[in-house]
Amino acid sequence: KINGERLWDSLMEMAKIGPGVAGGNNRQTLTDEDGEGRALFQKWCEAAGMSMGLDTMGNMFARREGTDPDALPVYVGSHLDTQPTGGKYDGVLGVLAGLELIRTLNDLDIKTKHPIVVTNWTNEEGTRFAPAMLASGVFAGIHDEQWAYGRTDADGKKFGDELARIGWKGDEPVGSRKMRAFFELHIEQGPILEAENKDIGVVTHGQGLSWTQVTITGKDSHTGSTPMKLRRNAGLGMARVLELVDDIAWSHAPDAVGAAGHIDVFPNSRNVIPGKVVFTVDFRSPQLEVIQDMEARLKEGAQKIADRMHLGIEFEKVGGFDPVTFDEGCVTAVRNAAERLGYSHRDLISGAGHDACWINRVAPTAMVMCPCVDGLSHNEAEEISKEWATAGADVLMHAVVETAEI
Amino acid sequence: KINGERLWDSLMEMAKIGPGVAGGNNRQTLTDEDGEGRALFQKWCEAAGMSMGLDTMGNMFARREGTDPDALPVYVGSHLDTQPTGGKYDGVLGVLAGLELIRTLNDLDIKTKHPIVVTNWTNEEGTRFAPAMLASGVFAGIHDEQWAYGRTDADGKKFGDELARIGWKGDEPVGSRKMRAFFELHIEQGPILEAENKDIGVVTHGQGLSWTQVTITGKDSHTGSTPMKLRRNAGLGMARVLELVDDIAWSHAPDAVGAAGHIDVFPNSRNVIPGKVVFTVDFRSPQLEVIQDMEARLKEGAQKIADRMHLGIEFEKVGGFDPVTFDEGCVTAVRNAAERLGYSHRDLISGAGHDACWINRVAPTAMVMCPCVDGLSHNEAEEISKEWATAGADVLMHAVVETAEI
Ligand SMILES: NC(=O)NCCC(=O)O
Ligand SMILES: NC(=O)NCCC(=O)O
Repeated sequence: KINGERLWDSLMEMAKIGPGVAGGNNRQTLTDEDGEGRALFQKWCEAAGMSMGLDTMGNMFARREGTDPDALPVYVGSHLDTQPTGGKYDGVLGVLAGLELIRTLNDLDIKTKHPIVVTNWTNEEGTRFAPAMLASGVFAGIHDEQWAYGRTDADGKKFGDELARIGWKGDEPVGSRKMRAFFELHIEQGPILEAENKDIGVVTHGQGLSWTQVTITGKDSHTGSTPMKLRRNAGLGMARVLELVDDIAWSHAPDAVGAAGHIDVFPNSRNVIPGKVVFTVDFRSPQLEVIQDMEARLKEGAQKIADRMHLGIEFEKVGGFDPVTFDEGCVTAVRNAAERLGYSHRDLISGAGHDACWINRVAPTAMVMCPCVDGLSHNEAEEISKEWATAGADVLMHAVVETAEI
Repeated sequence: KINGERLWDSLMEMAKIGPGVAGGNNRQTLTDEDGEGRALFQKWCEAAGMSMGLDTMGNMFARREGTDPDALPVYVGSHLDTQPTGGKYDGVLGVLAGLELIRTLNDLDIKTKHPIVVTNWTNEEGTRFAPAMLASGVFAGIHDEQWAYGRTDADGKKFGDELARIGWKGDEPVGSRKMRAFFELHIEQGPILEAENKDIGVVTHGQGLSWTQVTITGKDSHTGSTPMKLRRNAGLGMARVLELVDDIAWSHAPDAVGAAGHIDVFPNSRNVIPGKVVFTVDFRSPQLEVIQDMEARLKEGAQKIADRMHLGIEFEKVGGFDPVTFDEGCVTAVRNAAERLGYSHRDLISGAGHDACWINRVAPTAMVMCPCVDGLSHNEAEEISKEWATAGADVLMHAVVETAEI
């Protein structure tokens, strides 16, 4: 069994870097704080006797050798970056549970045949630079590296420049590693495990995602002196599209969700009718046909709204992935580990996207989930208990060690 | 008659300071560019033989002496600050037409009994610091000066600190001046004069305004893993309130208008359901009862929307003024001037707020308007013709000189 106290202490130590305003974290990708978090993780890995690899996308790979020099490593990990108003566990738990399992193997002097590599994937959250899971996506060959370098944040800064600036751009070509398997522990970010009082979620599938950036163009004009019938109000057009997004998602609920989290209004002045609004629609479902239906209905419906209101409208897909089915062998390893350790468990579909969704394309992959209070995540108040974290890390270790072979 | 070429050249010269991105201007109040614009205006005034006064709100008063040392001055002017994506004429025309009439009187060696003072009022637009017409409002005793100093922009900077920073905080106590009359020339910012092919609008009334800042509070949570029925989406709540605002305004159209130009979403991340949205509703009407009705229906309707969606909602009035009736004597002076000069004219109700609306509380006041292309304003493409500007400045001069007595 892993050392739950030590894992918890490391989580609290990491949370001191990039504190939020309400008890959580703001350690967004490729900020100075992200750099500090990486340095702390590297220090801990080296103290645990691991060597650090760093690829050209800033992905970190801390390696513990196996007894067979030719055996493919088993990979484990998640991400250290957070939302602007994020929690202390989303991503971080998966990375530090990987570190904790190495520390435990060291304590017990257990050697595995296959090396074990603990990873920190760059820019999982996708807030500063869309899309989410950017660097694991490049690793898996989904995105082009140069395209990723060119992604810009709200200030127009480029991903590639910011990666170099914080000093975490490595030399190792991205995606060159072969894996025996990949395991990711993550908090559920949804309410099911807590509601059903289960310790462990055995993640069999992942929802698919579609991010459509919508740009509505009207005409900036004076809010006071422009008659109602002459207005071309891009903000009102957005309001109608947001209502449409909600209707579309509900029409497929509970098998789909939809919302817009990002909205920018221009020129954003109290006495100027908005001439332009840019926002991103997030649709998800475990069924590909449902995602495709929602995308099509959004385009058709929003186009009609715009036409009727004499507004311009454009759609750009800025992120997305198809629903995922995880590897049967890896999923079974997770389920067996929970069973063996006596933790209550159930199968789950991940509501969120994870680096594991991309890595699943290039290696046998599965995920372990633990509950979080009220299913709340992407909120500074995100919370888990030490017991939940310990159970998740235990199951992770057993699945990894079984796969890495003693 | 004034020198239309000289007026136009000065307008074009001023427009070089704080250029926009699409041919207009971004010379927002109390920015470095505002400081530059003020310095240029001061230079021109001094070259025309005027002395400059500056009050504690940064209002500028360029004075041409009269022949009677005891006579109350006639005031004329408008504002040099612009919207973030503003035009070259909104406000600027009224200030520079004031300067042009002085230059013309100098050319013709005409002396008036009453001194003439050309003013530039600080922060008319209200974009950086709400409310609009802030400094003329303090001058007229509507707002407290210390309260005005404490108004903050989006970066949390204070009005008082920014005024001192750009070096335009004077010593003269604000509001200490007595006026014989105040005249303001402004572009219409609406479509009526152009559509009816009139040179001049004789402004008899001004619409009233109400700015209500609405804060809707939901709960930040994950767009992927939060089930539809557990969401508290502040962004969707805003969408419904925007639709309500449009409905309310239409129910009184054409005697009312309504929209929201300013919208901020938090944390504004693609995969976080908005936990908070702050936006400002702008309602206007020439009838006080209509404004009051719209405010009441907004509060009642938006509260219901919020309650139904389990969202929190708060309302704060961040600006407003009652409908204005301008001084009969001054209005007649404007109408007579247009008549005498042979310009076509009609009476108008101003759709926008103006410094004249506040000064009307402390001095006999009227406004002159000239057409603008397509009624478009608060847009970089705002346009007028040299002929329109010349006609407006001519009428302004004649009304001012009649009131200042030769
Ligand atoms: N786990 C997580 O929150 N990932 C961010 C990508 C997403 O929005 O699902
Ligand atoms: N004239 C003008 O645009 N003033 C700004 C105040 C308002 O919104 O009416």
